[in-house]
Amino acid sequence: MNNYFLYHNQFNLESGQSLDGFKITYTIAGNPFAKKTIWVCHALSGDANPLEWWAGLFSDSSLFDLSEYKVVCANTLGSCYGSTGPADLDEPLTFPTLSIRDMVRAHQLLAEYLNISAVELLIGPSQGGQQALEWSIQDPDFAKQLILVATNAVHSPYAIAFNESQRMALRADLSFGLKTGGREGLRAARAIAMLSYRSYQDFYLKQKDEERSAQNHRASSYVAYQGEKFADRFNPHAYYYLSKAMDSQDVSRGRGSLEDVLSSVKSKTLVIGVDSDALFPIQEQEFLANHIPNACLGVIRSAYGHDAFLIEYEQLNDLIKDFLYNEFKNNKPTTFKTKTN
Amino acid sequence: MNNYFLYHNQFNLESGQSLDGFKITYTIAGNPFAKKTIWVCHALSGDANPLEWWAGLFSDSSLFDLSEYKVVCANTLGSCYGSTGPADLDEPLTFPTLSIRDMVRAHQLLAEYLNISAVELLIGPSQGGQQALEWSIQDPDFAKQLILVATNAVHSPYAIAFNESQRMALRADLSFGLKTGGREGLRAARAIAMLSYRSYQDFYLKQKDEERSAQNHRASSYVAYQGEKFADRFNPHAYYYLSKAMDSQDVSRGRGSLEDVLSSVKSKTLVIGVDSDALFPIQEQEFLANHIPNACLGVIRSAYGHDAFLIEYEQLNDLIKDFLYNEFKNNKPTTFKTKTN
Repeated sequence: MNNYFLYHNQFNLESGQSLDGFKITYTIAGNPFAKKTIWVCHALSGDANPLEWWAGLFSDSSLFDLSEYKVVCANTLGSCYGSTGPADLDEPLTFPTLSIRDMVRAHQLLAEYLNISAVELLIGPSQGGQQALEWSIQDPDFAKQLILVATNAVHSPYAIAFNESQRMALRADLSFGLKTGGREGLRAARAIAMLSYRSYQDFYLKQKDEERSAQNHRASSYVAYQGEKFADRFNPHAYYYLSKAMDSQDVSRGRGSLEDVLSSVKSKTLVIGVDSDALFPIQEQEFLANHIPNACLGVIRSAYGHDAFLIEYEQLNDLIKDFLYNEFKNNKPTTFKTKTN
Repeated sequence: MNNYFLYHNQFNLESGQSLDGFKITYTIAGNPFAKKTIWVCHALSGDANPLEWWAGLFSDSSLFDLSEYKVVCANTLGSCYGSTGPADLDEPLTFPTLSIRDMVRAHQLLAEYLNISAVELLIGPSQGGQQALEWSIQDPDFAKQLILVATNAVHSPYAIAFNESQRMALRADLSFGLKTGGREGLRAARAIAMLSYRSYQDFYLKQKDEERSAQNHRASSYVAYQGEKFADRFNPHAYYYLSKAMDSQDVSRGRGSLEDVLSSVKSKTLVIGVDSDALFPIQEQEFLANHIPNACLGVIRSAYGHDAFLIEYEQLNDLIKDFLYNEFKNNKPTTFKTKTN
């Protein structure tokens, strides 16, 4: 069930602009009276219901005994799933620019409102991982344990270019910027995104033409269908702003060297990467695991690419179980660190 | 200097549609009276002037003594650089769909017109390589030697999806389909294409932000600039049709097994791949070298990705020199074949 947190004061953004308050939609699943909290940060197009979009991790039969935890997840500022964002406005593009830091600060105000000053586990994939990392840097005592999935400390030039090409496709749609406009551009943007979420190998295995045709190709229908499906569920302007926020990820901005900043994370940390991830490649998670003091790396072996975090549940559960309950030993990487706490 | 070949008869296309004749723009460089011919097939957005776009291969100091060869290159059917295509029409999208086979057959008619029944060397990169391979299958006696650069026998589902996402960006521009329309969509399409032409590593090395900004990123400016530059020189509708033609590449369509079809190539063949190519990955060139009877594989080591064929001239020249004048030995791959002719 969705809950709403209304913040009524001026909220200053990293851009120098501000919002006159905001609304954040959130859920509390599991046992709302439990003392221990798992806080889940969702990915770019996700929502506040991890029991739906991450059911492979958070189900009754999952590795977490949901009677012992409250599971909190909040929709990010800027999204179209119940939190304040550009989709609310008649002129969406007048909404101020958002950064990952803004999103995290809004959720920190929610945590304060919920009287949660520390959590047992903070976990997030992709853009959600960017937030979880940023949060753990802003407040090193917040998360006892931290799990960063297919994410990074600094968004790469290649990933920024992927996002920019999607924003160019959105802007090429002349109806973009009008409250109900931008649908065609969003379809194209999602098709582009699919290329970064999956892999050559995944397309080869699943979208190969069965009939040899010069003109009609399964891979074309597939990305067109994905674009259509996405345009039915997401708002073009929210997508634009969230992709800009993703590009803002650089936990070292204004804080000194990246290595020093990462060394301030106190949580016991598991960094999970996917060996075929083209958007957040495994070297980015190796870097995190190498520079967060009390971290180890788990690698998901998969042909799916970035999207493996939504698919390879057996590996994901095994890695997390191993991290939470055993001495971490699976997928022992060269970058494996001895736990120092 | 551009020459024009006008074909005045009905030209039947693979789609079942036809053209009432066509124009092909071509150049003859080097020594027009030479007996030996090098025929160059250009890539998707190339033109009939390889001494310009492939100057690193065809210059006065290049490995080819241009006084001994005539170098022929023709603009492909469908392009906007002097050959018949959708850009000529007031309603561009009424132009019939083209395939690689159609492009090759049009150039075969030009070769016939030029009285060239066989060439010393047929060479092409990317879409040009698709044509060179197709030509060598349709007419195994045409090319004594064949050099296929960063190309394939069957366009992959991943590459088709890359093209489809670009076509979706073009179609998202509501002015696409009007004679002078589609410019914004083409900018976005080119930005997407840049992601497939380059690599994560290349973007990291060249487009990394020097100043840490939450909002302005060099990688964004780079792809926007590339889109702008391309929209100044290319036609959106030509781009759309040429990308569809690229997707049609499957030399086995209607001809039996791919392996059998490739085994019909008689030319002494050098297949060149780039180890970081995300669009035509090296396994596609390995496949070609494994199944063309008299072929060997040369690998360009580069962080550039697909575009390395336009950049890594030292390696390209070395590989070709070795192939033409010595027993091929550079970059000896596991797939290296003993020459059997």
